[in-house]
Amino acid sequence: MIETDILIIGAGPTGLFAVFEAGLLQLKCHIIDALPQPGGQLAELYPKKPIFDIPGYPSVLAGELVDNLMEQIKQFQPGFTLAETAETIDKLEDGTFIVTTNKGTKHHAKAVAIAGGLGTFEPRKPALENISFYEEKGVEYFVKDPELFRDKRIVIAGGGDSALDWSIFLSNVASEVTLVHRRNEFRGALDSVEKVQELKKLGKINLITPAEVVAIHGKNHVESIVLENEGIQQVFETDYFIPLFGLTPKLGAIANWGLEIEKNAIKVNNALDYQTNIDGIYAIGDVNIYPGKLKLILCGFHEATLMCQSVYNRINPGKKYVLKYTTVSGVDGFDGTRKEAEKAVVKAIE
Amino acid sequence: MIETDILIIGAGPTGLFAVFEAGLLQLKCHIIDALPQPGGQLAELYPKKPIFDIPGYPSVLAGELVDNLMEQIKQFQPGFTLAETAETIDKLEDGTFIVTTNKGTKHHAKAVAIAGGLGTFEPRKPALENISFYEEKGVEYFVKDPELFRDKRIVIAGGGDSALDWSIFLSNVASEVTLVHRRNEFRGALDSVEKVQELKKLGKINLITPAEVVAIHGKNHVESIVLENEGIQQVFETDYFIPLFGLTPKLGAIANWGLEIEKNAIKVNNALDYQTNIDGIYAIGDVNIYPGKLKLILCGFHEATLMCQSVYNRINPGKKYVLKYTTVSGVDGFDGTRKEAEKAVVKAIE
Repeated sequence: MIETDILIIGAGPTGLFAVFEAGLLQLKCHIIDALPQPGGQLAELYPKKPIFDIPGYPSVLAGELVDNLMEQIKQFQPGFTLAETAETIDKLEDGTFIVTTNKGTKHHAKAVAIAGGLGTFEPRKPALENISFYEEKGVEYFVKDPELFRDKRIVIAGGGDSALDWSIFLSNVASEVTLVHRRNEFRGALDSVEKVQELKKLGKINLITPAEVVAIHGKNHVESIVLENEGIQQVFETDYFIPLFGLTPKLGAIANWGLEIEKNAIKVNNALDYQTNIDGIYAIGDVNIYPGKLKLILCGFHEATLMCQSVYNRINPGKKYVLKYTTVSGVDGFDGTRKEAEKAVVKAIE
Repeated sequence: MIETDILIIGAGPTGLFAVFEAGLLQLKCHIIDALPQPGGQLAELYPKKPIFDIPGYPSVLAGELVDNLMEQIKQFQPGFTLAETAETIDKLEDGTFIVTTNKGTKHHAKAVAIAGGLGTFEPRKPALENISFYEEKGVEYFVKDPELFRDKRIVIAGGGDSALDWSIFLSNVASEVTLVHRRNEFRGALDSVEKVQELKKLGKINLITPAEVVAIHGKNHVESIVLENEGIQQVFETDYFIPLFGLTPKLGAIANWGLEIEKNAIKVNNALDYQTNIDGIYAIGDVNIYPGKLKLILCGFHEATLMCQSVYNRINPGKKYVLKYTTVSGVDGFDGTRKEAEKAVVKAIE
């Protein structure tokens, strides 16, 4: 059982920043995310794209913002349960919660903050009979750990940035990389398209276009796939099949937790602390809704901050909290580190 | 008469960021500030100190944050009325406002956003009879324009960073710089203290400690001051006397505008748009108060954003606004510039 003060569901920018604000209040956080790495959409969907409306950043790459947030919170040592989704929640008599993931991991927390963004990013799966049988037996919708493919034969399907970028990256890991796309044209960053072109010429990426994967074969694991183009089929041997057809966000199991839902988002009390209709469960960032809501990262930062304050009051009833400014008081990490402004010296001038 | 969509009172980080969010909605902003430069407290009180709780910045110097915000908003060409304070407000029949400063500058705006922070920073004045007579006649509480002191004799009084830093800076401008402090010890950044020490040895700064300025003389302008130490007085000729004894924030004239005030802050509707009890006047950042309010810069950013959205609806009644993401739509400046993410290419790989 993982124990924490605030269990955060969603490792996007809002969830990550909540760790910092909680840390200032000496509250410990643990984060669950369906994706294999922190950062949410920013890391998964557009890491190399600039964002122009983060206050104080005329421009920042989404991936860079995630890296900076991870750097900002590391002193507060958040725990992570990655590549799992929160499935069930139980409220105990003492007002604490147990949240269990789809893999059975259990978390015990004094408060729960849902920072789920647009929802759990679920892969768009190809419409192939028996594909679910091969999941984790050779079919992978994410590259969670590239080492899984070390010296293996892999087939990647897709025509966008993910397909291009993983083909490039895994061409140095897998023994054989084949990229399959139903069109001849790819849609992605210019340098990715050019790099794939170059690797193809060097024989490091095998390109099959236009073609679609129409069947998977293998006894207990993928052994081959069937490719089809204009009615002609071809059996192609491979150890792994990685369809990268994009992600669709779904609110998922959280929708069944008894929370008030409106327009696929969770209603919160924006006049106070972004708490939901269930005492002790908060919703912050893009996943929540209230009058005038704007789904902007900077709003999630504010909501996360007020949520932490409310959790502090919940955990320490009657204790008066005095706001301290980081510039004045510094920041004490849970790892023993301390950040602080240089002190003024008092010195005579002779 | 200066015409604008949103008149922002206060050029601190919240007021500055409001320009950006307004710009995204095609609204033009003008900012009034009592200080001679933008940035509020950050620029005036602690430009060289790090802030640790700006989301996405593990650490940022206050002055650097102001520079970044100025860079972020420059494409939206905000106007500035600096070194003046907003004195009176008149609401016209059409719901627009006229705000007049202490110097008589008039601004006509469709909405007013008070982002006044802790208030107008007013200089702590030495308790000298007739000092007000000499204001703008040789007595200056701020260095608004260093060129005023070119080839003049100046006396700076004070023992902190401002006194040290301006003595250093003006030693290259004024014909004679004298620094007076009632103690021998100065309190400031180590490098400033050392620099003053060095300039003193070079004869570029004249240091008189411990001593206090106890009188000012001169017919229509400062001609000399009287220094006192342990009961002994000495007349000292000078063209300017610059007491830098720190600033105290005061809500000032705004307190008389008919706004609901609580604990020296302006009450707002935090459940919607941070509007005050007067329709069309908003209060954002440290100057406002609502249940659960935290006086943090990041909260000001959120409040500024929701305020702009509300002003948009006020100015364009019935027009539906569809939120656009800067990453997707880019940012179009009023100066004709455009920022945008690199587009994906669609290209065949042969």
